Order: sequence, then structure tokens, then C-alpha cells
Amino acid sequence: MEILENKSISCVKGFRVASIHAGFKRNEKLDMGLIVSDVPAVSAAVFTTNLVKAAPVQLDMKHIKNDTTRALIINAGNANACTGQQGLDDARSESERVAKALGVKPEEVLVYSTGVIGQPLPMDKVNAGIDKCLDSLRDDGDELYKAIMTTDTREKRIYLRMQLSGKDVDICGIAKGSGMIHPNMGTMLSYVVTDCNITKEMLTRIQKDVTAGTFNMVTVDGDTSTNDTATIVANGLAGNTLIDRTDTKDYECFCEAVYYVTEYLAKAIAADGEGASRFMEVYVYGADELEQARTLARSVAGSSLFKAALHGADANWGRIVCAMGYSGARFDQNKVDVGFESKAGEIEVFTKGVPLQFDEDLATKILSEDRVQVKINLNSGEAQAKAWGCDLTAEYVKINGDYRS
Amino acid sequence: MEILENKSISCVKGFRVASIHAGFKRNEKLDMGLIVSDVPAVSAAVFTTNLVKAAPVQLDMKHIKNDTTRALIINAGNANACTGQQGLDDARSESERVAKALGVKPEEVLVYSTGVIGQPLPMDKVNAGIDKCLDSLRDDGDELYKAIMTTDTREKRIYLRMQLSGKDVDICGIAKGSGMIHPNMGTMLSYVVTDCNITKEMLTRIQKDVTAGTFNMVTVDGDTSTNDTATIVANGLAGNTLIDRTDTKDYECFCEAVYYVTEYLAKAIAADGEGASRFMEVYVYGADELEQARTLARSVAGSSLFKAALHGADANWGRIVCAMGYSGARFDQNKVDVGFESKAGEIEVFTKGVPLQFDEDLATKILSEDRVQVKINLNSGEAQAKAWGCDLTAEYVKINGDYRS
Repeated sequence: MEILENKSISCVKGFRVASIHAGFKRNEKLDMGLIVSDVPAVSAAVFTTNLVKAAPVQLDMKHIKNDTTRALIINAGNANACTGQQGLDDARSESERVAKALGVKPEEVLVYSTGVIGQPLPMDKVNAGIDKCLDSLRDDGDELYKAIMTTDTREKRIYLRMQLSGKDVDICGIAKGSGMIHPNMGTMLSYVVTDCNITKEMLTRIQKDVTAGTFNMVTVDGDTSTNDTATIVANGLAGNTLIDRTDTKDYECFCEAVYYVTEYLAKAIAADGEGASRFMEVYVYGADELEQARTLARSVAGSSLFKAALHGADANWGRIVCAMGYSGARFDQNKVDVGFESKAGEIEVFTKGVPLQFDEDLATKILSEDRVQVKINLNSGEAQAKAWGCDLTAEYVKINGDYRS
Repeated sequence: MEILENKSISCVKGFRVASIHAGFKRNEKLDMGLIVSDVPAVSAAVFTTNLVKAAPVQLDMKHIKNDTTRALIINAGNANACTGQQGLDDARSESERVAKALGVKPEEVLVYSTGVIGQPLPMDKVNAGIDKCLDSLRDDGDELYKAIMTTDTREKRIYLRMQLSGKDVDICGIAKGSGMIHPNMGTMLSYVVTDCNITKEMLTRIQKDVTAGTFNMVTVDGDTSTNDTATIVANGLAGNTLIDRTDTKDYECFCEAVYYVTEYLAKAIAADGEGASRFMEVYVYGADELEQARTLARSVAGSSLFKAALHGADANWGRIVCAMGYSGARFDQNKVDVGFESKAGEIEVFTKGVPLQFDEDLATKILSEDRVQVKINLNSGEAQAKAWGCDLTAEYVKINGDYRS
């Protein structure tokens, strides 16, 4: 498995991509994109658990059930959420326009929107944008990873190549999201595209597992968007032996690649939290069960108080233990160890339920790094989980206080 | 029922109170207090649901089971949390010292601490403080409401008088808490003291119901402390006919008084959220069930994104609907109305699941007031609930980033 630099979705065999300016963003910035597979592909997606689902999410939840997928159309700047029947009609109309131009079925087209909630899609711009996308599809590099950005400050993309049954198999992932997971521009969207030959059943299984361990472990402010969607598409053109069961080396290897790509994107989103100055990984290990480890890790990564402490490089283990305590997960507080690690070193601050006297200067040095790991050992079982987040800054408040206006 | 100004706990018949400086806080500030009932009283308490419970909470959970209570000893500045066996021994020793001096049983003494987590109680200061408290008990006014404050910027106390079976019955409530409900200094402690004649069974029932609708509906940052405790004590000296069943006018009237006092304190805590500049009440009505209304109200009041929007006086109903969506409570989004109200007026921004064109200037004016009500009508049933919170400010981040150092 190797990482290839400067590649994008259109570099994967049989995928063409357009990224254009349709007029949602100012200053001619890219704000719309289209992914087309030259052959019928299989796809899987995990959608927001928010009860209030944007129109494109409602549409895609139906379209994803179709056996094949041919295209994905995406706009950034308007979420088409809380837009009632008109929103549903607009999303459907998008899929129909793309389908007609490509000579495929509307159910083979997935539709995505991100941006401000509650404003009807400007369909003149959307339609013109779709046509422009159709005219500018290319297979030699694209900037879709830029077109989907909203409040993101950094691009998020990764490209891997692996060998399966003697064939090169490529996989490319891009994502947008910051201020995670927030209901307006901060929606999390991710696209993983591969030429792997795999059944829809296997792909669906992998996407569900991987999302639970990666995107669902990112927390920036605890809010879940109306539009969050993680999609994976595989068109089979690599020509590897079809992956149709779980007990093979190929399945395992492909799983690992999807996990690697998705975890990379999830961490990139956490690091790009709105106004964030510091990235944190919360590593819970020695747990009895995976879900327990995940719940504890997420609770710590999501604690406003610990996030504020992290911003001040304050080794406030009390807030960590407290966030574990109200997480809802069980654990024996008399067995817990807590420590911090970064480039600047490692320190233990709490052991077997009791605080340690520790070197405050060293702790501050460790916590002042850009990337900090919080290590929590439950000293009980073998399960472990990681969650990712960022510090809470005054800048976050500023961005989110001023956003709509 | 009338409100009396400038009264405190020691003004309630048969209660003596001390509030002193024991040395936990700097600048001779009050930091320790003692409440003593001259006769055996009944008490009830609701404790933090955090799995990690401070030593005094663990002790009080046993002592509250005792039929009678005679004294409450409280310190601010050190939480005696995450202090292992030593912490438990220290809390027990406090109850024994107070009990011995008063000639009562240790189980008749409740112990409270609030402050920094993970540091052993300085027992020399504690013991000297207890002795000083015992020497300075008075029944003609006290400043216990000041002694329990930590990061609070305002005192929180209220005093009511009602008539039950021809007798004057007094009830006084004090509380501390800000940056609610946060694991260090921000712990929520409340004390409601009355001379009402009531059984422990009735008192316990009332305290549980009232706490669910008041303190549990306050959210500042979603973190639940290791030390949060809401206690009520009644010594019967008013001489009213014993309240021992729920189907009486006296029960109803007393309930109402406790609810009034507790809601007043809960709202005062929300308004005193660390760094908060604006108080919000989220009023959910037209719900099918009480729990559904409560869950939705709390979710909106606790959304970091809406709190940040409120700080910017931004009528961002999208974040409200989104927070309702991820709350876990069911509702029909196509029936929902959302509006805002304050001294400056009233405005509806969302109706039957669809955004309204509204006057942005008026909305900004309404949201710029000190106290803002978010009104959410589910247009379905008769249940309703209110939750209280505050905006999210850069100042909050500052306070909580710098707190420990």
C-alpha cells in the first residue's frame, strides 16, 4: 500500500470529475462538482442521524438502495435543508437533469448540498452549474476537494494504491468539514472513490464499520448536521478478483485501505475545527468493550471544559475524569490512568484513580504542541478506541456568532 | 405567598448559620459555612449523576438515608473529589467533628465541598474552620450565600413566606454555580431550608420532581460535576399541620413554593454562566409528553452553535431545528413553529417546518436583550417544558482555559 501525492478523484480509473464555479460562493471560487463513473458502480453511504434531514439526504437514502450508481452531483453554499416539498422537488430535479444528460436513471445519481439552511436552492444557478459540470468533466486531475469546502481552512484529500490479486487498485478520499459537525456550512461530507472490484454488500458493510470508528469519532462541537453524509463508490475497473466475502486477504487489505483513507480524513477534519489552534487525539485503551472505549473517548474529546483547558495548555485531568464520569459508560475509576503525549514528551498525571504530583512545566510544554494525545488506560480489558477533536477557542465563538450575517 | 427581601437561611425558625473565612480563598473571603437545625429535621437531596462522585457526595448518599438531619457543613475552594480513600476518610472526619460538638450522630451531618478537583483537603484548615463555624452560629442573618460562591459573579438567594393551616411557613433557598455544570469550581450546590412540618417521604418526592424540572433544565456547557448536589431541609418548627400526603391543599401550596424557589435559583445560575452576556429561556410547548419537551428544550439550550449564534444576536433558527433533530426526541418537523421573544418584542421565524421571511432588524433587536426566550411550538399535544442557559462567549473560553493556573 503506497500513498501517491497530488492525485485526485479523477485519477482513479474510469472516473471523470468536474469542479466549477456556479455562483454560490463569491470571488469565482469553486462551489459545484460532479463525479461520473464511466461504468455502473456500486456505492454505500452513511447518513446523518439527525431527525431533521436535508432534502438531498432524503433523496439519497432512496437512491443508495439502487444496485448501481453512475454520478454524484454536489454544491457548496446552500444546504437545501428545511426547505419543505420544494427542496425535495429541487433535489429530485437535479438527479433527473444529470441522469438525462448521461443517459442513466435518476436513481443512479446521488445529490449533495452543503451551506446555509432554510433557503430554497437557486435552481437557475444549479441548472446552469450542472450543465457546466457536464461540459467540463476530465480524467486527469480535478479540484473537487476545493469545490466542496466552506469554512474549511485546509484541503482534505488522500490517494492510496494497493495490489489486489495482482492488480493495481486505487482509492482516493476527499472530505469537507470543520467546526464539526455543525448544521450550516460545517456539514461533514466525504467521498471515497475506488476502482476496486467489490460487491455492494461488502462495500456497505465496510462503509458502516469504518464510519463508526472514524467519522463518528470526530467531535468538534457535538452538533450533528442535517446534511452529513459519507459515501463510497467502487466501479470495479481495476480488474481485481471480485471481493464478495469477508474471509479473504483481499477483503482485509481493502478494508485496511478504506480505514486508512477515512481515518486520515476524519483527523484532518478534527484538526481543521473552526478556530481551532490545537488537535487532540483521545486514546482510550484497556477497556472491556469497544463501545465503552468509544463512548469514553468521544465524551472527553467533546467536553467543552476540557477543550477550553487544552486551549490554555492546562493539564486539567479533573475535567477528563469528569467527562468520563458523565459519558454514560461504566468503568472503575480506581483503575484509571491518565496521561498526555506529544512531540515534546510524555507525562502521567493520574494513576489508579489518584492524582500524581507531576512536573507542571513539562505538562505545559507537552500540551502546547499542535497535536496532543490524551492517553486513558482503564486497566481492565483489551478494547480500545480513538476520538479526535480540537481545542475550544475564542475564535470558534467569533466564527459561529457571526456566521449567518 | 410573599417574597421577603434581604433575608437569609438563619432567618428561618430554628436554624442557626455560620459563614466564615477558613483559608481556602484568598483575601479573607468567606469560604466555609455551617447550617444547624435546633431540632431534628428531615432532609432530601438529589446528587450528581456523574459516575465519578466526590467523597462528600459518597458520604451524603449514605447520610441522607438517616431519618433525621441536624447540620450541614460546607467548604468552597477544594472539591475533595478524586482523592481516593483519604478523601472519604476526611469527609467522614468532618461529619464526626461537627456531630461531636453538637452532640448528635455523624449520620445527622451532611458534608459538602466545591472547588478544585484532585487535591487532598487541608484538614488543619478544615478543622479550624469547623470550630470557628461552631463558635459563630447566629440566627439573625448570615452570608452563607456568599461563602459558597466560587466563580459566581452574583449571589443567588430567595426567601418566601406562605401560610399553611394558619401558620407562617418560611422557605429560603441559596445556590452557587456558574459555568454550569462544570467539574471544578463550577459545581452546582443548592440549599433550600424551611420550617415547614412535612414528612421525609413527602419532602423526598417533592425534591426529586422539582429538581427534574428546574436544576436539571439548566445547561451552560453540558458538563456534569462530580459534586453537584441539591438539598432541602425541613425542621417542622412552623407548627403547621404535618404534610404527610399529596392530596391536600397544603401539599400543593408547599410544592409550589419549593418549585418557585428552585426555579428562581436555577435561572439565576443559568444567567450567571461563566462569561455569559445573555440569558436564554427555551420554551417548548405543544408537545405530546413532558420528557420529550424537556429533551428538546435542553438540547437547544445546550447547543454550542446556537449559544454562539445567540451571542452574535443572530436569529439562526437552523441551529435550533438542528439541535432538536439530534436531541433524540421525536417530533414532526412539518408542524414546528420557532420564534423569539424579549422585552424588545416578539417574532416568528419558522412555521410548520418552513422558514419565514422575517424582519432581520427586529430579530436582532429582540436577540440583543439581556434575557431572550426561544419559543418552540410542536403543535401536537399539551406538554411543555422550559430549559435555561446562556450564550457562549469568548470570555467563557478564557475563564476555562486559564482556570487551574
